[in-house]
Amino acid sequence: MILVLKPGASGQQTEELLNQIKAKGFDVHISVGHDTTIIGLIGDTTKIDRRTFSSFDIVLNILKVTEPFKKANRMFHPEDTVIDVGGKKVGNNTFSIIAGPCSVESESQIVEIAKELKKSGVTFLRGGAYKPRTSPYSFQGLGLEGLDLLKIAREETGLPIVSEIMSTDVLDRFVEDVDIIQIGARNMQNFVLLKELGRTTKPILLKRGLSATLEEWLMSAEYIMSEGNENIILCERGIRTFETYTRNTLDLSAVPAIKKLSHLPIIVDPSHGTGKSWMVETMSKAALVSGADGVVIEVHHNPKCALSDGEQSITPDEYSEIIPKLNKLADIEEKKLEV
Amino acid sequence: MILVLKPGASGQQTEELLNQIKAKGFDVHISVGHDTTIIGLIGDTTKIDRRTFSSFDIVLNILKVTEPFKKANRMFHPEDTVIDVGGKKVGNNTFSIIAGPCSVESESQIVEIAKELKKSGVTFLRGGAYKPRTSPYSFQGLGLEGLDLLKIAREETGLPIVSEIMSTDVLDRFVEDVDIIQIGARNMQNFVLLKELGRTTKPILLKRGLSATLEEWLMSAEYIMSEGNENIILCERGIRTFETYTRNTLDLSAVPAIKKLSHLPIIVDPSHGTGKSWMVETMSKAALVSGADGVVIEVHHNPKCALSDGEQSITPDEYSEIIPKLNKLADIEEKKLEV
Amino acid sequence: MILVLKPGASGQQTEELLNQIKAKGFDVHISVGHDTTIIGLIGDTTKIDRRTFSSFDIVLNILKVTEPFKKANRMFHPEDTVIDVGGKKVGNNTFSIIAGPCSVESESQIVEIAKELKKSGVTFLRGGAYKPRTSPYSFQGLGLEGLDLLKIAREETGLPIVSEIMSTDVLDRFVEDVDIIQIGARNMQNFVLLKELGRTTKPILLKRGLSATLEEWLMSAEYIMSEGNENIILCERGIRTFETYTRNTLDLSAVPAIKKLSHLPIIVDPSHGTGKSWMVETMSKAALVSGADGVVIEVHHNPKCALSDGEQSITPDEYSEIIPKLNKLADIEEKKLEV
Amino acid sequence: MILVLKPGASGQQTEELLNQIKAKGFDVHISVGHDTTIIGLIGDTTKIDRRTFSSFDIVLNILKVTEPFKKANRMFHPEDTVIDVGGKKVGNNTFSIIAGPCSVESESQIVEIAKELKKSGVTFLRGGAYKPRTSPYSFQGLGLEGLDLLKIAREETGLPIVSEIMSTDVLDRFVEDVDIIQIGARNMQNFVLLKELGRTTKPILLKRGLSATLEEWLMSAEYIMSEGNENIILCERGIRTFETYTRNTLDLSAVPAIKKLSHLPIIVDPSHGTGKSWMVETMSKAALVSGADGVVIEVHHNPKCALSDGEQSITPDEYSEIIPKLNKLADIEEKKLEV
Repeated sequence: MILVLKPGASGQQTEELLNQIKAKGFDVHISVGHDTTIIGLIGDTTKIDRRTFSSFDIVLNILKVTEPFKKANRMFHPEDTVIDVGGKKVGNNTFSIIAGPCSVESESQIVEIAKELKKSGVTFLRGGAYKPRTSPYSFQGLGLEGLDLLKIAREETGLPIVSEIMSTDVLDRFVEDVDIIQIGARNMQNFVLLKELGRTTKPILLKRGLSATLEEWLMSAEYIMSEGNENIILCERGIRTFETYTRNTLDLSAVPAIKKLSHLPIIVDPSHGTGKSWMVETMSKAALVSGADGVVIEVHHNPKCALSDGEQSITPDEYSEIIPKLNKLADIEEKKLEV
Repeated sequence: MILVLKPGASGQQTEELLNQIKAKGFDVHISVGHDTTIIGLIGDTTKIDRRTFSSFDIVLNILKVTEPFKKANRMFHPEDTVIDVGGKKVGNNTFSIIAGPCSVESESQIVEIAKELKKSGVTFLRGGAYKPRTSPYSFQGLGLEGLDLLKIAREETGLPIVSEIMSTDVLDRFVEDVDIIQIGARNMQNFVLLKELGRTTKPILLKRGLSATLEEWLMSAEYIMSEGNENIILCERGIRTFETYTRNTLDLSAVPAIKKLSHLPIIVDPSHGTGKSWMVETMSKAALVSGADGVVIEVHHNPKCALSDGEQSITPDEYSEIIPKLNKLADIEEKKLEV
Repeated sequence: MILVLKPGASGQQTEELLNQIKAKGFDVHISVGHDTTIIGLIGDTTKIDRRTFSSFDIVLNILKVTEPFKKANRMFHPEDTVIDVGGKKVGNNTFSIIAGPCSVESESQIVEIAKELKKSGVTFLRGGAYKPRTSPYSFQGLGLEGLDLLKIAREETGLPIVSEIMSTDVLDRFVEDVDIIQIGARNMQNFVLLKELGRTTKPILLKRGLSATLEEWLMSAEYIMSEGNENIILCERGIRTFETYTRNTLDLSAVPAIKKLSHLPIIVDPSHGTGKSWMVETMSKAALVSGADGVVIEVHHNPKCALSDGEQSITPDEYSEIIPKLNKLADIEEKKLEV
Repeated sequence: MILVLKPGASGQQTEELLNQIKAKGFDVHISVGHDTTIIGLIGDTTKIDRRTFSSFDIVLNILKVTEPFKKANRMFHPEDTVIDVGGKKVGNNTFSIIAGPCSVESESQIVEIAKELKKSGVTFLRGGAYKPRTSPYSFQGLGLEGLDLLKIAREETGLPIVSEIMSTDVLDRFVEDVDIIQIGARNMQNFVLLKELGRTTKPILLKRGLSATLEEWLMSAEYIMSEGNENIILCERGIRTFETYTRNTLDLSAVPAIKKLSHLPIIVDPSHGTGKSWMVETMSKAALVSGADGVVIEVHHNPKCALSDGEQSITPDEYSEIIPKLNKLADIEEKKLEV
């Protein structure tokens, strides 16, 4: 970390600052330049906030030399991380497809969709048991019963299952029942939940928050990793901007950015990212080409009757037409659909 | 709720849509216009999502006639809600000041600050026991010990205390120990936590999420209210925009907007809203004039040594100078500082 | 346009509103529903602002049934528009590549780059003669001399040339010298300039404004088209969001969105959209797959010495490696590189 | 300007960078730290872009030590600038009110409003002659005839007049006819127009762009000042965010921020900033208290019939009630209404 002092900082002010730096346990390297003085901190600065020293009047600017995330940082872990989920691989040269309905609604619904997805080709089955809805009056999901139905669908098809957790009180059930635990955008900074998941060994699908920067997102991954669990799959799902035509603005440049900053796999959710079913195919293809390790696609037999998010769900038939197109692109990109 | 159909919608498509609407339990009022057909839904549409019917191709646009929030809605509750916290009133013609350090750091720290605040005039003492920090390596707060120290400060000064809760597992302790429970911006859509707090009778300080719309914020209040707890104080604390000079962009127009939409009291946090201690006085005054029912101000003896958020904290001396200025403005605005 | 009245609107208030509507030249269709009244306006509402009637207290909400843009609207012009530039086609199943340096710096610079681009395959040569720089102290471009140098490069290579115009006073020279006139993001709503360009027949490359919605962008195209010039190529170049890692956030979902809303061709600028040279290849490929009709790529011999935008420029060698990759993807997408 | 090199930068790479820095005319101060090297540039770096050196791989980060604006910078001009407009003062301890209709519609309209404003107390009369409308089909203003009508209103009332210019071709008429020339948000980065206005001596009202950072806004002021005209009044008018309840998000923290960064006066436009007439009084008061040097308020006799922006206009009667309230606050803030 580097502190740039304002021109004209007095000796006494500088002394006071240096004392505070040393009190925090750092050595310093001081460089007196033409019209400014620069103080370099020596020691592990990942533990201190960029803003720690900004309350000093004489500090003009503060610069982090190293990223605040360590375990998620590609600099300290150059090889791509590959997550193994019951033999299926996420990362490296595979392309995974997580598909299923927004909400688990009934046994027949989830089992039928699972079967059709399996026939078309799919890596993981997803289905929401707990639904974070903006309104308390909207359908909130079937809860633990939803998990039971997902397990039936897994038994029938062999597909590993993915579902979103919303609180720690059902953590044990999720660890036992589910193959990948999803953390939704609204809980990306639910730090208590992140830490608890960090103490398990379950693969985690960590969605980017609605207006999270890339750094904040990786810091949330770091929360999980700092407790021991390094099985994290990041998921770009669109960010909030002024544009209202799409539900969110899908940030595909986040894919190469994350690949540069981190070794963790990243997948893309074009269903939430655009909010429009007719964009899902196109943006899934673009995600693959942008370097993503997979996509999450909402599929529902009858989107018009879905209990949630019908507007962005595609039908199993539409889904079946996307797979061969992704396959062609995967060939060119030297990836292999993990289906 | 009103559905506007695209010009050229066929009879069969319209029929299919009408069946789905009726299956959801609504009556309809159909109006065939010049080049479009409009379907009005009759019944309680607060329970359905605006997007429920948007998966129908023939639906051009969907319009909610009533706001999705009911208990928080001024339309159904025209009088201002006033929250009583141990005899102190929030709302109506009072102006409350919640002040204290970002983090509780030690007994002497919190007790001394509390005493100085009391001397200058203050309504509630705040202090963070659990801190939602972006980095897992940053100071995370003293936890339950922090609550104990806050209680000592309350005993010494008589000031009611405010502290942020981050998860349901310490809910009982918060209910027992704290006078107002704060929900931070990052947990505004932690729906499980909201519901649990809704089952208590504690006053809740509900901060606006980093990029939450006014409607989403009121829906989070609705989550709490729908479970029975109507003692909610909203807190505007800045939203995330492209501007980086300030930590967030403080949205003071949210104050008159919320006053129009809801009967709940709203206060403003200029410390987090700007991230700059030297803006706190000015923006506190502007908050009062904009109609806010109070402010939250971070105060620390030695901001340069604060374990968190030093940049935005003011000293007790600086605090003491703000109060008479707020008092003068309160006189003009026919408000009374609740100190 | 549909006006939804608030429940409880009085007869007199409604009368006043109806009179105002009729005064603006519209017929009305009134539908009295269960708890609200809906007024449909009959006539050409593209000429009135959505907000025209919102000053009436009894108006709850206003809904446009038709988009405010007409000539740019796919509804009234279902076939894709193809722009012919000296025999080269933009739109339909072609994929165009506009490449060249941010700024024209010298004859040798622009001619050499042009030759190398030609060798690798390129559709149009671009180069900035007038540069919209944030600072008045930054290099502002060579001006008309820059146009002269571009013409030399065209003569030497046969490549049609693209350059940005910043004001109407050099319009005649641009019309005479340049094959495609670019309107930059900062001038997207320079309505006087748009209208003047609308009176020419030159192909226009219209960049999306820094924070323009899709509708505003199409309305700017409509400004040009309403004056007679329908030769417009839209260019997505990233929007401004809270994310600072990339220069802008490239919105690739704008491509399928614009294709749905309009018949105009749309290309993508990954250089400005990301601000990072190492993302250009990946995002160019993603743009092709998302359905774009082309890309704009900044190329400079020595990005480290570029007078502007070195960080996002790639070298001619790097450029040459992108073309075969785009070619492979174009094959799959049934597009043909127009080179 | 300070360049921080990546750990592990080779001697040859560093050499190449140093040569480029020297070629740009700077001396350097090199400081070799614990795990990084820092290069300080000595010389006038306001002329170079922050991004000039970021194409070098070894550059980790670049930091400007001085702001890129000079003439607008408070550091070099500590006293508040006061603009004199025909004897009326903008800045220092005055509070100016610019009021009038969005569009000049007729002689009787503008003259009547001017007279009523004068009676209530006002500093300047504003009225739009040229209107930047999103749609080419909307009312575009009366043009030069509008200026003529404004002049009549000035003759009748003695009020200096303010109007927006949209292009350089009518610059001479504006210089001759108008007392303050407004540059609208959409033209904040119309650099050709800024430079031309810089060559006049007219007071300029420079609105902040829809998504302009404070630094970009001040750089636009710098464009005007660098050509010689230092009579600039900045105007905050709301920025574009994800919130849709208000037309824009009025950023009142921009007032103290600009006061810190610059010596130029700053006023606030609550009419455009919120888009809601019923918020104008409240936000005008908050603007005064936040330290603004004035406000711009849209006033129309009959907002329901206004040719533009009726929703945000207040009536002359409503206006007359705001003035005494502003007067009371001005007393407390030791300001004087310049009416």
